[in-house]
Amino acid sequence: MKKLLFQLDTDPYPSVFDTVVAYDGGADHVIGFADCKPDTISPLVEGAIFTRAEKDKKNSALFIGGSDINLGESILDSVRNIFFGKFQVSVMLDSNGCNTTASAAVVSMLSSGSLSGKKAVILAGTGPVGTRAAIMMAKEGAEVTISSRSHERSAGVCKHIKAKFGVVVQPSEAKSNEDRAKLIENANIILATGAAGIQLLSPEDWQNNPNIEIITDANTVPPLGIGGVEMSDKGNERHGKIIWGALGFGGLKLSLQRLCIERLFDSNDQVLDVDEIFKIAKGMM
Amino acid sequence: MKKLLFQLDTDPYPSVFDTVVAYDGGADHVIGFADCKPDTISPLVEGAIFTRAEKDKKNSALFIGGSDINLGESILDSVRNIFFGKFQVSVMLDSNGCNTTASAAVVSMLSSGSLSGKKAVILAGTGPVGTRAAIMMAKEGAEVTISSRSHERSAGVCKHIKAKFGVVVQPSEAKSNEDRAKLIENANIILATGAAGIQLLSPEDWQNNPNIEIITDANTVPPLGIGGVEMSDKGNERHGKIIWGALGFGGLKLSLQRLCIERLFDSNDQVLDVDEIFKIAKGMM
Amino acid sequence: MKKLLFQLDTDPYPSVFDTVVAYDGGADHVIGFADCKPDTISPLVEGAIFTRAEKDKKNSALFIGGSDINLGESILDSVRNIFFGKFQVSVMLDSNGCNTTASAAVVSMLSSGSLSGKKAVILAGTGPVGTRAAIMMAKEGAEVTISSRSHERSAGVCKHIKAKFGVVVQPSEAKSNEDRAKLIENANIILATGAAGIQLLSPEDWQNNPNIEIITDANTVPPLGIGGVEMSDKGNERHGKIIWGALGFGGLKLSLQRLCIERLFDSNDQVLDVDEIFKIAKGMM
Repeated sequence: MKKLLFQLDTDPYPSVFDTVVAYDGGADHVIGFADCKPDTISPLVEGAIFTRAEKDKKNSALFIGGSDINLGESILDSVRNIFFGKFQVSVMLDSNGCNTTASAAVVSMLSSGSLSGKKAVILAGTGPVGTRAAIMMAKEGAEVTISSRSHERSAGVCKHIKAKFGVVVQPSEAKSNEDRAKLIENANIILATGAAGIQLLSPEDWQNNPNIEIITDANTVPPLGIGGVEMSDKGNERHGKIIWGALGFGGLKLSLQRLCIERLFDSNDQVLDVDEIFKIAKGMM
Repeated sequence: MKKLLFQLDTDPYPSVFDTVVAYDGGADHVIGFADCKPDTISPLVEGAIFTRAEKDKKNSALFIGGSDINLGESILDSVRNIFFGKFQVSVMLDSNGCNTTASAAVVSMLSSGSLSGKKAVILAGTGPVGTRAAIMMAKEGAEVTISSRSHERSAGVCKHIKAKFGVVVQPSEAKSNEDRAKLIENANIILATGAAGIQLLSPEDWQNNPNIEIITDANTVPPLGIGGVEMSDKGNERHGKIIWGALGFGGLKLSLQRLCIERLFDSNDQVLDVDEIFKIAKGMM
Repeated sequence: MKKLLFQLDTDPYPSVFDTVVAYDGGADHVIGFADCKPDTISPLVEGAIFTRAEKDKKNSALFIGGSDINLGESILDSVRNIFFGKFQVSVMLDSNGCNTTASAAVVSMLSSGSLSGKKAVILAGTGPVGTRAAIMMAKEGAEVTISSRSHERSAGVCKHIKAKFGVVVQPSEAKSNEDRAKLIENANIILATGAAGIQLLSPEDWQNNPNIEIITDANTVPPLGIGGVEMSDKGNERHGKIIWGALGFGGLKLSLQRLCIERLFDSNDQVLDVDEIFKIAKGMM
């Protein structure tokens, strides 16, 4: 029986990235749907849950992707509302690669020791990857601050995190490199998850700060978010700090996403979101 | 050579239900097209008939689906107009599952004996499944009446059935449960094919009627169309009548749809519509 | 590792023709995208180049198709601009089948000897197939004229050919069969690539002309472009001329398109456009 992955994507084209990784993760066929919305996916979900015998349902699964994580979360809620009794299939949420990218970054940082009690600042952290990483790091025991150019935005994200995921993350406003340099003065860990091509810190903002232990930059387009970081840094030591660039943990992100797809087909009752994907990532260490 | 099924679907997304069943029926690849219309499908059909050598054309096939059977029928006409000489591939019409669902329901009823001479009433029977079932039952020799809240609608459907399929079915108007109870007074067979969640008859409308032999309800969402029927009824006897619920003949519907897909690839000259699909279903008894 | 072909199509539905041929050419999965434009394809291309390790990238490839060759050329330019360093995959351009159809027609004509120094006229030659054939024949040393009912259109195409492909082709205006008969008086080779169902020359326009050696008609719908040609002519001699009809070289066109798909997966750095596809076709002689 063929393993069928139905890709519910919120963008105008289903993600090619997710399609390739799904095939490499063991799906026999990936069937993509574009422009998905919470109120248009019922027939797609019903078609997945009503077509195979109970023992075979594990061979059908759903993947929610696309660049809009809020829409992705709403679709996941819709999908779960349609499930009833044994009429369900496994489903994974990874809009914008948020869960797999954040997991790979956080697990990479964990390779140099526990995050418990560490002060962590996520710069430009209100996007999907920053948000997911904040949840994971807070659950690992770090004191996490999310900074944004707008206090309103960072406060909104922290409120959403508290309400939906039950963890406390501090919001912060930092409009300039100076603001951000000041914000990281007492930090042990810095993670940058800003937009492509915008530098958030200069090398001199961190190189001589003895508090800082780990710096990670998720940016894949130069100039990176944190001056002095190389995209290929893979836990290298620079100025006494451990440095991770996007390519440095990108291999792990790809392996993790493939492994999650593989796991989806183990049973028909899994929901892979932030906690489950982070757990799978930790199992890869 | 791979078996390719091109799914011409009239809905905004190609049916996941049909996709899963097509894979389970043996298609190597199912390629879906949404929002199909009679005047937009020419390049799709031409691409299917012009690309493989004569002996290989049986490995390409078309499936017409979606929730609109009228549009589906028009597309089938369009497809057949494009075929010429040996330039054709096999094609199946099953909009809204009409032919496979109706066949499974009627064949289930046939398991308790011939329908010849029986009086059959199809409640809320103007939809795709009711219409297809009416044709099949009439061809089996039953005297079939289709009821609807609107006489105009049931009369229109009966006229269409006569014109397109050459069988006589009687229209009837029944606006209330009282009307419907009266309509079935002399019936031997009742089939309900109404919309989800609307009860058409109460238990007391049929339980003490000695004329009624078989009751079938195609509804999959409670409350069912006929009070006293269980979705899982599989030819059970209740109050002396044989009862079929949607899950009771649903397994047969799925098996039949898979088998039709398998048959599509036996040769390049098949047209599977009401008669052919009903015939395949009878072969499964 | 599965061979994935991403089909960037400029039409409202991805071409079924190209899909079937891609499967028959060895692609394990063909994933189609409709309505592609140069400015909408970035995520598709990025998903193809970022998802597999360097040694595995040859298993992902792009196919640009659809009926609009100008849009196809712009998309190819866009695709190549996204590639950088080793982050690329092989790509083939064959909008409207232009390169494979033209190659098959020209290679068929080459089977009776060199085109060097021959006078060739391409009737109704401003479309994708005529344009591509003109480039190929000119590169083989023929003196090529493209005729059209509009001088402006044929001149525009010749200018585009000179600018983009560096070969000289002469434009010509021929509004009527009389004009075209006069135009071919001194020609050795005639290729007709006009719209379906429009006759460009009558039999008497060419049958007694001793200069004419080869006539090829790419039309697949009767009446053909050149009276007296049969669609199935496969290098037959008629009135002392070698005649090729669309079905006569259609088998080669299909084999060539399949072979190009197969070649796409040999390495991750190929760009298959007019020159490369024509070269592959000549290798099949």
